[in-house]
Amino acid sequence: MKTLISGGIVITAIDTVAADVLVDDEIIIAIGAPGTHDWADTADNVIDATGKYVVPGGIDPHTHMELPFGGTYASDTFESGTRAAAWGGTTTIVDFAVQVKGESLIAGFDTWMAKAEDNCAVDYGFHMIAGDINPQSLADMDVLIDRGCTSFKLFMAYPGVFYSDDGEILRAMQKAAATNSMIMMHAENGMAIDVLREQALERGETDPVNHSLTRPAATESEATHRAIVLAELAGAHLYVVHMSAKEAVEEIAEARDRGLPVFAETCPQYLFLSVEDHVSQDGFEGAKYVCSTPIRKSEEGHQEALWNGLATNDLQVVSTDHCPFCMDDHPVLGTQKKLGVGDFTAIPNGLPGVEDRFQLIYHGGVAEGRISLNRWIELTSTAAAKLFGMYPKKGTIAVGSDADIVIFDPDVDWTKSVTQHHMDVDYSAYEGKDVKGRVKTVMLRGKVIIDGDEYLGTKSDGQYLPRETVSVHH
Amino acid sequence: MKTLISGGIVITAIDTVAADVLVDDEIIIAIGAPGTHDWADTADNVIDATGKYVVPGGIDPHTHMELPFGGTYASDTFESGTRAAAWGGTTTIVDFAVQVKGESLIAGFDTWMAKAEDNCAVDYGFHMIAGDINPQSLADMDVLIDRGCTSFKLFMAYPGVFYSDDGEILRAMQKAAATNSMIMMHAENGMAIDVLREQALERGETDPVNHSLTRPAATESEATHRAIVLAELAGAHLYVVHMSAKEAVEEIAEARDRGLPVFAETCPQYLFLSVEDHVSQDGFEGAKYVCSTPIRKSEEGHQEALWNGLATNDLQVVSTDHCPFCMDDHPVLGTQKKLGVGDFTAIPNGLPGVEDRFQLIYHGGVAEGRISLNRWIELTSTAAAKLFGMYPKKGTIAVGSDADIVIFDPDVDWTKSVTQHHMDVDYSAYEGKDVKGRVKTVMLRGKVIIDGDEYLGTKSDGQYLPRETVSVHH
Amino acid sequence: MKTLISGGIVITAIDTVAADVLVDDEIIIAIGAPGTHDWADTADNVIDATGKYVVPGGIDPHTHMELPFGGTYASDTFESGTRAAAWGGTTTIVDFAVQVKGESLIAGFDTWMAKAEDNCAVDYGFHMIAGDINPQSLADMDVLIDRGCTSFKLFMAYPGVFYSDDGEILRAMQKAAATNSMIMMHAENGMAIDVLREQALERGETDPVNHSLTRPAATESEATHRAIVLAELAGAHLYVVHMSAKEAVEEIAEARDRGLPVFAETCPQYLFLSVEDHVSQDGFEGAKYVCSTPIRKSEEGHQEALWNGLATNDLQVVSTDHCPFCMDDHPVLGTQKKLGVGDFTAIPNGLPGVEDRFQLIYHGGVAEGRISLNRWIELTSTAAAKLFGMYPKKGTIAVGSDADIVIFDPDVDWTKSVTQHHMDVDYSAYEGKDVKGRVKTVMLRGKVIIDGDEYLGTKSDGQYLPRETVSVHH
Amino acid sequence: MKTLISGGIVITAIDTVAADVLVDDEIIIAIGAPGTHDWADTADNVIDATGKYVVPGGIDPHTHMELPFGGTYASDTFESGTRAAAWGGTTTIVDFAVQVKGESLIAGFDTWMAKAEDNCAVDYGFHMIAGDINPQSLADMDVLIDRGCTSFKLFMAYPGVFYSDDGEILRAMQKAAATNSMIMMHAENGMAIDVLREQALERGETDPVNHSLTRPAATESEATHRAIVLAELAGAHLYVVHMSAKEAVEEIAEARDRGLPVFAETCPQYLFLSVEDHVSQDGFEGAKYVCSTPIRKSEEGHQEALWNGLATNDLQVVSTDHCPFCMDDHPVLGTQKKLGVGDFTAIPNGLPGVEDRFQLIYHGGVAEGRISLNRWIELTSTAAAKLFGMYPKKGTIAVGSDADIVIFDPDVDWTKSVTQHHMDVDYSAYEGKDVKGRVKTVMLRGKVIIDGDEYLGTKSDGQYLPRETVSVHH
Repeated sequence: MKTLISGGIVITAIDTVAADVLVDDEIIIAIGAPGTHDWADTADNVIDATGKYVVPGGIDPHTHMELPFGGTYASDTFESGTRAAAWGGTTTIVDFAVQVKGESLIAGFDTWMAKAEDNCAVDYGFHMIAGDINPQSLADMDVLIDRGCTSFKLFMAYPGVFYSDDGEILRAMQKAAATNSMIMMHAENGMAIDVLREQALERGETDPVNHSLTRPAATESEATHRAIVLAELAGAHLYVVHMSAKEAVEEIAEARDRGLPVFAETCPQYLFLSVEDHVSQDGFEGAKYVCSTPIRKSEEGHQEALWNGLATNDLQVVSTDHCPFCMDDHPVLGTQKKLGVGDFTAIPNGLPGVEDRFQLIYHGGVAEGRISLNRWIELTSTAAAKLFGMYPKKGTIAVGSDADIVIFDPDVDWTKSVTQHHMDVDYSAYEGKDVKGRVKTVMLRGKVIIDGDEYLGTKSDGQYLPRETVSVHH
Repeated sequence: MKTLISGGIVITAIDTVAADVLVDDEIIIAIGAPGTHDWADTADNVIDATGKYVVPGGIDPHTHMELPFGGTYASDTFESGTRAAAWGGTTTIVDFAVQVKGESLIAGFDTWMAKAEDNCAVDYGFHMIAGDINPQSLADMDVLIDRGCTSFKLFMAYPGVFYSDDGEILRAMQKAAATNSMIMMHAENGMAIDVLREQALERGETDPVNHSLTRPAATESEATHRAIVLAELAGAHLYVVHMSAKEAVEEIAEARDRGLPVFAETCPQYLFLSVEDHVSQDGFEGAKYVCSTPIRKSEEGHQEALWNGLATNDLQVVSTDHCPFCMDDHPVLGTQKKLGVGDFTAIPNGLPGVEDRFQLIYHGGVAEGRISLNRWIELTSTAAAKLFGMYPKKGTIAVGSDADIVIFDPDVDWTKSVTQHHMDVDYSAYEGKDVKGRVKTVMLRGKVIIDGDEYLGTKSDGQYLPRETVSVHH
Repeated sequence: MKTLISGGIVITAIDTVAADVLVDDEIIIAIGAPGTHDWADTADNVIDATGKYVVPGGIDPHTHMELPFGGTYASDTFESGTRAAAWGGTTTIVDFAVQVKGESLIAGFDTWMAKAEDNCAVDYGFHMIAGDINPQSLADMDVLIDRGCTSFKLFMAYPGVFYSDDGEILRAMQKAAATNSMIMMHAENGMAIDVLREQALERGETDPVNHSLTRPAATESEATHRAIVLAELAGAHLYVVHMSAKEAVEEIAEARDRGLPVFAETCPQYLFLSVEDHVSQDGFEGAKYVCSTPIRKSEEGHQEALWNGLATNDLQVVSTDHCPFCMDDHPVLGTQKKLGVGDFTAIPNGLPGVEDRFQLIYHGGVAEGRISLNRWIELTSTAAAKLFGMYPKKGTIAVGSDADIVIFDPDVDWTKSVTQHHMDVDYSAYEGKDVKGRVKTVMLRGKVIIDGDEYLGTKSDGQYLPRETVSVHH
Repeated sequence: MKTLISGGIVITAIDTVAADVLVDDEIIIAIGAPGTHDWADTADNVIDATGKYVVPGGIDPHTHMELPFGGTYASDTFESGTRAAAWGGTTTIVDFAVQVKGESLIAGFDTWMAKAEDNCAVDYGFHMIAGDINPQSLADMDVLIDRGCTSFKLFMAYPGVFYSDDGEILRAMQKAAATNSMIMMHAENGMAIDVLREQALERGETDPVNHSLTRPAATESEATHRAIVLAELAGAHLYVVHMSAKEAVEEIAEARDRGLPVFAETCPQYLFLSVEDHVSQDGFEGAKYVCSTPIRKSEEGHQEALWNGLATNDLQVVSTDHCPFCMDDHPVLGTQKKLGVGDFTAIPNGLPGVEDRFQLIYHGGVAEGRISLNRWIELTSTAAAKLFGMYPKKGTIAVGSDADIVIFDPDVDWTKSVTQHHMDVDYSAYEGKDVKGRVKTVMLRGKVIIDGDEYLGTKSDGQYLPRETVSVHH
């Protein structure tokens, strides 16, 4: 079964060329100059991409489908969340399996594998949240690496929940260094933050905006600095998740200038949302924008610094940290964000975004002139594929790679809204935002699963994606 | 006329894939997965690249063929120099046309165009050395840009020769900003250096090593800093040539962290040679390594900083500053390096290197583990193509691009020597150095010009390459 | 003839103590705890300083009395200017003798010595502006050092007038290093600034505010950086005058952190005035605030950075750069500021301030809580005495030192105005400003020259003060 | 009872003057110019200081007399230790009272007050080690401040012993900010260090040198950075103790450049000792130099950075961290350093130094040309007095201040040795070191307690010194 995508502009992280792409079954087998071949004659299917961009499917390396958090669960299941990902042009996610205190790493991994199996519209892999670093956990890292889970996430925040102390972190990083696996870090000084949260509540400051105000930028940049120091001591690769503070970006930049294998991501919410315009909205509306690291004040210049970091390669990836909770009761899960009415510390942390990312970064990045087309692809697909051991199967348009291909129309103007999205959550973080550029067609390993307004896939299209260990150096 | 390069590993600045490449006349028309097509059946010529790398031809954006300097001329003509470039895997050079004081920019350009015409084994373009900034020169920049010369080089060194003062530099940068052309800068504080040189001679310090000693790192980093400040004032793109000092790299890194469109190159001589081992050799031997910026002391850590800069993308390009002068008399040009016996300031500045670069960076970069294969290609070809308006015609292997292709054998061990090279100069700067990896076949726009030990080209294979203005941002 | 100052709080750069001070003729001979001695019994004169501060007389190391500039002269003569200094609590000035192009250093010095002789109300010394660096000038530096002129000022601004190129600067710095004298630097990139000025005029931007706008902060910080590099190459002590840009302060801070003997001053105008509130005033009013380096925009944070630098010792001295020109015609000198109506480049550069400094720094520094009492004295007296070879004769209250003493009332609230000051200029740069703290009594080498509202001195009270070479290290 | 010290050079942190000093009972009552008074006529006692320096008595703000540590006690009692201090020119110490987990702050303070009472040869105060931060401890800080204990020490090292987590630290800092007291910090990442120590033992690396090797510089600089961030969040004054790593000094410098009220000390052992020459000595000799923070490698440049920090005022104080343990069995206390034979983690941490400091800093600082005489006094006396609320009673030679005066002979050459010192410990950390400059006479509040080779004091000469809260800003 051969498909020809013809007439488009093929964009990779480095190249922008007019080219036709020939797919056989699940794999890209040829790329040709238009008018120089007769592939259309033998193709079973020809897709006309004239005037469109033909790009690698997006990879979102940071999602939390069905995550149990604060007494409820993220409202998107693997099924609903990955289907929404597909609608948004993302053909691979890497979600997080969770080890809780007192349980084994492997048990946590198995639990999450079972949740995802036959429930994903796109391909998926797992990072492992190591919530209980001990000798057995460290030994079990080898087992998970063999099973294609080659990245381990630690938390400097959330004491008593996911928090690891610096000694535990150092041990996990040493193990990662020995196994060439990746340490992912939630870098916030949770010990200090918990004091500030408790004191805010004592002062009667209970509104959602206090979530942002009690997580000052210094708590993020301090933890980022410390994570880098520990990683350098251990000789480990480090990937800092969901950066939101300009001071934290400076720490990453400094480490990378020195040649350290330190990497970082940000997310659309930090590029587009602010305390002034969103978290401090009247009433309980700000709860929509409660996530950690927090949305910050635009007057402090974080958004500009994050965009600059994306342009300068001090930040390498845009992920979503997709972790939606409903404002009104969810039909199945019940009360979610409103658990925190009168107590901002009880608001489940998280935002929807898996469907928004790929298109938003085109809009804010390319259409608004901050980055090139190639950088858009690198940030939303290629870099994650390389950092997390999915390349060259994923992350590029090249012969031999999986035919995960998005046909993207750069000229469509539209307005984002909860009425348009497919995520199982009752609000959009970007409600009413006018954007340019939209996904038109999505192909997963050769199968068209989105065609304009139609979803043509099934909940078992997605396959588990075992990943290699780290092969990049900088 | 179709040629198929089959069985190799195709490497670009981002991808590494097993792929066959189909060339029709001068252009790459298809890339296919091995075993999925029948292109061999219709190809006029099939080149077996099994076990080899198939990479874009090298681009050297800094050469000085036939340059008049210090009373003599660089010993390589366009003919001999570009043929040597081809032997070394470089299929495009960008040389420097020269405006001297009192003459027009356009006259200088025309002179150099005439020198090169029908005398080049590989494709060539020109940057323009603006040696006399005045209202007419600034106006003439428009004319040259129309003729495909979109980059202009200024000197903060060589007072009385090429030197421009900061006011002239600012004006030229403003013009470059207005025309989206690139300013290239020789960044050394020539005013200070000339004092140090005069004082060294007064003290009787006349040996070649004094060339390095009278150009301390601070004179390079200061000028680099100043060039960045002036470029930021003007809003211009800046490309600093031949960086050799770690302190200067730090200036570039700081500017790039801030998001400024500042770029820089280094050259193999700064990565491999040192004062201790080379410039301070007995007798007059050190004259072989007299160039500006100078070779520096290895104990000061410059080489490590330069390699780090190449890895971190603080430096984007490796060029050569190829500008050879013979140690013994040249048959045609007569006395060269020895003009400086007894007076190091009279030694013509320059080294041979156009043939060495592509292979040396593979050896020191990839084989010795400092950079990836993709980064090797980016540094030696793709980045220069993008920065200087030659992409996508040059600098990648993609459909529609010129078929400038090198087949590279990564497993050959050999020893560099003047007896092996093809540059018209009587010494090698790397004599006796054992290296890994060698160019096997070189194709220029579809024509094989090097095949193993055979040169199959002619001196008119090379075409003038008009270049676009700047399209990259970072 | 003995005078006892009793009952006050004696403040030096380090100590704050209740103490009585006994002066014999010109010298302080004893400091005693109140109530422990009978010095009043034998004193010829007892001054009651109860409730007042007893502090060292101010030292202003940067004044330009009678300076010829732009076709006119600074309106304060040595006589009027030094008398105003006394009124403001300053008992020593160091003015600048001028060498113009083509004349000798010594001739310039002699000229200025003659102007000052028998015309000064307070003690005075001279720095030498070296406007023509050549072998004779360098040799003459020895002569001036013998005559007590141990500091030499160079200009990176004003091409064609005082400007020295980097080679000349390096030579002068080498000479200063060899003689342990001090290099003072006007650090602005005059070459770049002149281009910006010319272009502003071409665009018809002729108002006084353009003086500030065509001297962007980067032109100051760049020159400061370059001056530091050259001084480090030469091994010289460097003192950068009239810092106004926060970016330039950062350069000083970085050099000092590295342990370099680099020093810097700022002036009251940069601490209190701004483009928004002063230079951009309607009509030609902004001309009052035209000086170089320029007054900058308060929104850019320069004032805070300068105050911070004063607190952290990145800046060591507050001087005035006193160089007044009248807005309306001066009775003797005629048109001054108004030379620049319609052409901001023709406005004489300079502000009055010699009378304002000592009290303003108390007000903005101590009364407003930015610095300690001791730091006030260090900034306005002690540091200059030590840096410029006047200590311990000047700059402290210690036995053996000159009895240059100010009795200062910290509790007086008053309003600054041209109607109150004694400088020969028809406006105050601080008109209408409410301030706290005022000079009550001024003693010059034991003689009371100001007593409340009375001036008791003569124009020949001041003596020439030969200075030692540099003895401080940091 | 009046004493006249005549003919010397009086040195303070700012002044150097030939002056006579008149003491009445415990207080300095007058300072006079030689030859201008008749004070000798009425003095009870005249001390001839001709050719000598007359300086404020040293203040050592970091000692640990009788400290319980690792199963033993520091071998110097308050009696022996303060007597040794006097011999070394130090007339005030500030020791550390200890709160252990589960006990109250006040109880700890009372215990230490009792130990010291009537047992001190010099004046003494206490900082409080807060080993158990809880609401009661925070409340008790008010009580201690009232009793003159205005500084509180926290530990980021020693988990399970003195360690406070970041939340506890933040709370204590907030309390310090509210009470204007000082937070002192032992800044090492103890969590990471404990992992490295355990792993070293597991690898069989048990020699004393491993103490240094398992506390890499990054663990100090990281903790220093974190302490600064937390202090800035809290708005507290921070004083980092015993800095030994150049990277940590850089953190302090950066914070101070920003104007933060951050201070730091180093100790003689970090200025003079090294891993290469001392800690790695054969056999168990290295145990003499086991202290925390550790002695570091000289090849890494820490000593130069620390001296530079002392010169540039990035470091403000030299203390000792005096905490001696015997190599051979102590007559009373038994086995000390040798507890750690075969297990470096069991070596009691600490070095003798209270007698060495004042003279060593003269030698290495002034005699070897790194700092001025004034800076020597500031570092060893004045700065500590001002930072810790003892000024102007202590730390200067001024009328009204305590007559704590050292007469110092700058010209004596001698050799340091255990045979010469008076500390109760069986080795000198500086055995055999030739030094210049020696204490000749020591006066404590007017009483001569050291006169050449004679000790004239008693164990009850020293008084408890209640201290004020912080009054310095930078």
